[in-house]
Amino acid sequence: MALVVQKYGGSSVGNADRIKRVAERIVATKKAGNDVVVAVSAMGDTTDELLDLAGQVAPVPPARELDMLLTSGERISMSLLAMAIHAQGLEARSYTGSQAGVITTAAHGNARIIDVTPSRIQEALDDGAIAIVAGFQGVSQGTNEITTLGRGGTDTTAVALAAALNADVCEIYTDVDGVFSADPRIVPNARHLDRITYEEMLEMAASGAKVLMLRCVEYARRYGVPVRVRSSFNQKPGTVVTGSIEELSVEQAMITGVAHDRSEAKITVVGVPDKLGVAAAIFRVIADIGVDIDMVLQNVSSTHTGRTDITFTLSKSNGPNAVAALEKVRAELGFEQVLYDDHIGKVSLVGAGMRSHPGVTATFCEALARAGVNIEIINTSEIRISVLIRDTELDAAVRAIHEAFELGGEEEAVVYAGSGR
Amino acid sequence: MALVVQKYGGSSVGNADRIKRVAERIVATKKAGNDVVVAVSAMGDTTDELLDLAGQVAPVPPARELDMLLTSGERISMSLLAMAIHAQGLEARSYTGSQAGVITTAAHGNARIIDVTPSRIQEALDDGAIAIVAGFQGVSQGTNEITTLGRGGTDTTAVALAAALNADVCEIYTDVDGVFSADPRIVPNARHLDRITYEEMLEMAASGAKVLMLRCVEYARRYGVPVRVRSSFNQKPGTVVTGSIEELSVEQAMITGVAHDRSEAKITVVGVPDKLGVAAAIFRVIADIGVDIDMVLQNVSSTHTGRTDITFTLSKSNGPNAVAALEKVRAELGFEQVLYDDHIGKVSLVGAGMRSHPGVTATFCEALARAGVNIEIINTSEIRISVLIRDTELDAAVRAIHEAFELGGEEEAVVYAGSGR
Repeated sequence: MALVVQKYGGSSVGNADRIKRVAERIVATKKAGNDVVVAVSAMGDTTDELLDLAGQVAPVPPARELDMLLTSGERISMSLLAMAIHAQGLEARSYTGSQAGVITTAAHGNARIIDVTPSRIQEALDDGAIAIVAGFQGVSQGTNEITTLGRGGTDTTAVALAAALNADVCEIYTDVDGVFSADPRIVPNARHLDRITYEEMLEMAASGAKVLMLRCVEYARRYGVPVRVRSSFNQKPGTVVTGSIEELSVEQAMITGVAHDRSEAKITVVGVPDKLGVAAAIFRVIADIGVDIDMVLQNVSSTHTGRTDITFTLSKSNGPNAVAALEKVRAELGFEQVLYDDHIGKVSLVGAGMRSHPGVTATFCEALARAGVNIEIINTSEIRISVLIRDTELDAAVRAIHEAFELGGEEEAVVYAGSGR
Repeated sequence: MALVVQKYGGSSVGNADRIKRVAERIVATKKAGNDVVVAVSAMGDTTDELLDLAGQVAPVPPARELDMLLTSGERISMSLLAMAIHAQGLEARSYTGSQAGVITTAAHGNARIIDVTPSRIQEALDDGAIAIVAGFQGVSQGTNEITTLGRGGTDTTAVALAAALNADVCEIYTDVDGVFSADPRIVPNARHLDRITYEEMLEMAASGAKVLMLRCVEYARRYGVPVRVRSSFNQKPGTVVTGSIEELSVEQAMITGVAHDRSEAKITVVGVPDKLGVAAAIFRVIADIGVDIDMVLQNVSSTHTGRTDITFTLSKSNGPNAVAALEKVRAELGFEQVLYDDHIGKVSLVGAGMRSHPGVTATFCEALARAGVNIEIINTSEIRISVLIRDTELDAAVRAIHEAFELGGEEEAVVYAGSGR
């Protein structure tokens, strides 16, 4: 008998009929001889409706109360799901994050899971019941306050439960068939991936692939939980995220796929005095307002002026705050100007095969050049190349790279890194 | 500094605007120098909407999951109320029944409060914060399951919190100005009562007065919590429920008012064999299906036939079940017929003054006779007379009795029991 943890998102449980369909899938998994634990998100638009209510009573709701409010969404979906399973003849019990032993930091709205002590879930399984757990929520260590985990929180709940219960697999149900070599909406012959390592999935997620959230993959890698991403609308097996690139043979290591990201903006700080510590002071200003930066480029200093430009990218949603924070310190730090550009896009190539195949970067850049795409910033890791380009050229760039590395579905299922790096 | 517990029902927090108004009242109470704890119900129609959703996924939802579902309603209203108070500049923290230490029996849907251990509420008060507590819910002793208290549960939550915190007063906010000598919709000059004893309020509630639920008054009496019933739509002081009839002097003891009830039905079991144990067996059948009976009448046995009739009243909602249960045992117990009548009404006169003033029953019956109202069953307690009549004559009966005992507002505020009992 295997222990399966399943995660269903908000659209999978968006109304009573969908909840009954999800219940059927859970019942089938149980009847196939598995123990089943389910992490579930709030129904469809519930969270937005609750946020709207909050906005009507308070312009800036306190974070503690916002968490209390939003966690009612999963309470509704999980109890309805348990009822629907019950109506299909099996026993199911729903548990809040707190009851399920999901212990978190105290950071309301963006808490991190510290520990999971699922004794009540284990009891339910021992009794032969299906356990339904509220995703996205937990209880703070020591202070026992209700917390939420932030975006993608239910995926993380599922993986954390799978780790704590030593589950055989964590199935993440979504609206796509798994992970592809590129976004099929941009590249029609994008190839479905049966398997991907944690590191590659991390790089894909960090590069804009939306199928799994970064935190969930990090958690899965840390605890070695195999994650299967699959569609809740069909029975296809999806994509398994498991294993390390270290375990791959040279033959197994390949180019995984192309990811793209339209969510970033670019800030250029112009005329920065080329003095020790000024660049650091600029990045400190950004860090102090809680904003993460992604790519960074520092131009070579002009020997004539003793000044340089610093360019970096960040989430568009943080753009206005970051510009305002920099403007405040312009006189103090002595730079000339802050430029803001949100018409940019990022395209990335990810694959363990890059490590052992030289020439990937050259092939990558040649493909973009042939497609007439200009590179503004380039950034690499051991298994990833990313470039910043114009947003209008993003789709063309994705297609050019996908084709240059022969990642398409007409080829063999396994495509090796092409012409060297 | 006083400690005030306030209760707001679903219609008082029915939308964002009403929540803000309730927040203003709470803030005013706090700014007047009081510590404030609030018990709040789910917003307006939330409970009905959740029940509807449950019905869509399961024909007979398990009680545990139904409680989990319904308790999300108070979670929403309490966090919104805390936000609204915060937006008005004061600190407020919301707590679930479980967090507030409301320990109950395990009877899902109709749990009773066993104990209240409000250490987190006390902490919030010690920090100068206003504590908002989810009404209607608790957590079961030992098994730690989420429970609900059944009808009027939020009133009971408020009174239980007031008792545990040794509050100076428990204010129940509702849509009327307090307790009246009769329903003002039937008796236009019904007199507002400034004060009523626990025993009289219990009899009024048991006789159909809807302003406070029986369980809440019982709890208040047991722990000596003064309860003030008042309107959330104005600043009138309302009615204080406090003190025992034992403490009243003869001059203070008066006729409190007239209550009426349209919610009952009458069952007559015809031709019951006049043998030891048959009547008991009939009542056992009703008790075994979980139905409470109210008034009972057993006719004198006919010496010719050795048979008698047994008549009793019960809630209309239980009528069909009770009739079906009785039909099942008709042959076994040997009675002839079961008659069902739901066109009845009950009118009651309540007042501590009855104890010391003979002749109340005579005046009561004379008033009904003058109004042409026929009495089907009569039932009395130390401080109450109730009669069963036709439902079509209920309003006339209420007015006749109210007038016979000179309870109207044109009289002095304190009206003594009239012409003896």
